[in-house]
Amino acid sequence: MALPRSPLAPAEFPQLPQIDGLRFASAAAGVKYKDRTDVMLAVMDPGTTVAGVFTRSATRSAPVRDCQDKLAAATDAASDTGAAILVNSGNSNAFTGHHGQTSVAEITSAVAAATGITADRVFTASTGVIGEPLPHDRIIAKIDALNSGLSGDAIADAAEAIMTTDTFPKGAKAEVEIDGKTVSIAGIAKGSGMVAPDMATMLVYIFTDAKVARSSLQEMLSEICDRTFNCITVDSDTSTSDSLMLCATGASAVDATGNTAFAAALEEVMLDLSHQVVRDGEGATKFVEIQISGAASDTDAKVHGLAIANSPLVKTAIAGEDPNWGRVVMAIGKSGAAADRDLLSISFGDVLVAEKGWVAPSYKEELGAAEMKKQEITIKVDLGLGDGTATVWTCDLTHQYITINADYRS
Amino acid sequence: MALPRSPLAPAEFPQLPQIDGLRFASAAAGVKYKDRTDVMLAVMDPGTTVAGVFTRSATRSAPVRDCQDKLAAATDAASDTGAAILVNSGNSNAFTGHHGQTSVAEITSAVAAATGITADRVFTASTGVIGEPLPHDRIIAKIDALNSGLSGDAIADAAEAIMTTDTFPKGAKAEVEIDGKTVSIAGIAKGSGMVAPDMATMLVYIFTDAKVARSSLQEMLSEICDRTFNCITVDSDTSTSDSLMLCATGASAVDATGNTAFAAALEEVMLDLSHQVVRDGEGATKFVEIQISGAASDTDAKVHGLAIANSPLVKTAIAGEDPNWGRVVMAIGKSGAAADRDLLSISFGDVLVAEKGWVAPSYKEELGAAEMKKQEITIKVDLGLGDGTATVWTCDLTHQYITINADYRS
Repeated sequence: MALPRSPLAPAEFPQLPQIDGLRFASAAAGVKYKDRTDVMLAVMDPGTTVAGVFTRSATRSAPVRDCQDKLAAATDAASDTGAAILVNSGNSNAFTGHHGQTSVAEITSAVAAATGITADRVFTASTGVIGEPLPHDRIIAKIDALNSGLSGDAIADAAEAIMTTDTFPKGAKAEVEIDGKTVSIAGIAKGSGMVAPDMATMLVYIFTDAKVARSSLQEMLSEICDRTFNCITVDSDTSTSDSLMLCATGASAVDATGNTAFAAALEEVMLDLSHQVVRDGEGATKFVEIQISGAASDTDAKVHGLAIANSPLVKTAIAGEDPNWGRVVMAIGKSGAAADRDLLSISFGDVLVAEKGWVAPSYKEELGAAEMKKQEITIKVDLGLGDGTATVWTCDLTHQYITINADYRS
Repeated sequence: MALPRSPLAPAEFPQLPQIDGLRFASAAAGVKYKDRTDVMLAVMDPGTTVAGVFTRSATRSAPVRDCQDKLAAATDAASDTGAAILVNSGNSNAFTGHHGQTSVAEITSAVAAATGITADRVFTASTGVIGEPLPHDRIIAKIDALNSGLSGDAIADAAEAIMTTDTFPKGAKAEVEIDGKTVSIAGIAKGSGMVAPDMATMLVYIFTDAKVARSSLQEMLSEICDRTFNCITVDSDTSTSDSLMLCATGASAVDATGNTAFAAALEEVMLDLSHQVVRDGEGATKFVEIQISGAASDTDAKVHGLAIANSPLVKTAIAGEDPNWGRVVMAIGKSGAAADRDLLSISFGDVLVAEKGWVAPSYKEELGAAEMKKQEITIKVDLGLGDGTATVWTCDLTHQYITINADYRS
């Protein structure tokens, strides 16, 4: 099924910087799709530190469990051998019993043999249909060709190879100056459905030539993830496979351990990629930012924001360009977090819609309707209770979502 | 917007028994709709005990707060004056500021004046659009006519008057023999969207001529609600208005306080009405029962069941008649309740689909596909962990849901 490119997609894939110490290759292994690439290999030089955040699903896939085990067991000495990441699309290798673990072991062994990187530093991910055995022989048959085709200039092809129902490849970059030297960050992502927060919710790989100590790398990744990938939702469903990894090759010899400018640049890349995932939400025609303030706590603010972002009635109202703020009130009410009807206020863009427990005296339906006609919509809610804030992002719920998911076996 | 009658609707409205000590009247007050009834009044004789369960929404409506206050303050002597219930459709009187409380006070005073029942025994409910002032004068103008038109034989008309986006009126009944005498139960309900569990999720009124002590009536209602109305979901959204009330007129002089046969008959009525609400789910074409067993606890079982029932990806797969059990695995994984991939099994109807962490050896896609073609679908999940069980009910998610909610201002 060829889906049209999302109307919310950026104009083009960005020109990503080459990251020293990092090379990519892609191939068409025929895992499921025909006539397109479906495997990518990333290989990093010795000295690379690796961090990861993964789905918390109780039925998470064999590759996810393998990555988690390897990162949990890693020591600072682990980076001596470099690292590799192999990703396939078309089959998620999830809920495939012991066969799933065998596939992961076979693939990582083959990558280790070809690249000379020890198997405990070879990470894999699989995305696509659940419950069908991964034809790992087809992937293994391509590993030598992948390894001999590695190039520092092939990240855009890698972003294409990991797509499933995505309608555009996703990339983002940043540069940051530290001690007069420039380090680069480049990231790619895939994801468009089965996307919800509270875990890594898609496949995301971010690379930098900065040198960052392992524990600092993990700390930055986890913390920024809570404000970026854990604040987006397309359909409230959570994949069994999704993974976010951050790799620092250290090839620039610039130490960014604990560096706040580096963390800010990383957050910029992660926010950009997370928004691109929402912009490719299945059937999305509107990009929606929900800003919550005045909540009893930041946690409460996020609960309210996600209740609004996940409400089918709010999302269909947005699809219909209906300024139906009553549904926003409903979503706040059901969220379970603290709210007082008479203290909360709601705005669409800069139009104050409701305050003091009722529609604002200045509000006119045509003002709200004009906001709803925009392609980028902001909903602001002030609970009037405290200092808690959160911003979450989502898209609308359209006929196209139903078409994609009622007819396509993902 | 005239919606076609749900394909899952029962053939006809049941012939409900007259409940001694209870009379109804309906009228067209023009609250919002034209050319249809939109107000119903139920009046009960002295001796009637009343119990209620209401939405837990933090932004619940003025009528809900009023009912809760009155029931909380009620004593056993309260029933001496009888009781009345007035319901309007077309406007929910929710998020209408202090105006909302004024409307409730004006309506209850008018009903009290007309019927001679004290205002603290007059309960109201409103259902329809949120955030618009209730034109209570239009309702009050009809109260004398309603009061003089009360009849023991008018419950079917009452079921029609409380409808909003419902495509059919909902009624259910039961009879139970206690000490050689027969008591009757009759109930009506409305609800089709903004329906989710964990609270009373629509308007439901159930009446019996049995005599039941107030505390016993409330206990039975709350307990059975957890297994019926709190186990259904259409779209995971929760109304600000919804209310479930149970009134026992005692006119039969048969005491059913703490009677298990009575409780069983009441459960039958509540289950029937709750299923009818799912069958009228906006856009529903499939009625889905999800049976969970082997969970670590009953609570965990319900969490798993509702995660499956609320998953947009599961619900769209059902709409597309796709036996996509991978999405069931995903929903179990994301629910947050305990699950072990290698212990769980999944069946569609009597077809074993997955077990021991993978597709069952006996499973064939055409077997699952045949189950999915049915109008009534059963999904069974055994977690293999303990004794916890739950059954929940939902419907599919179709284009018609999007059409109704993207185009209709509810």
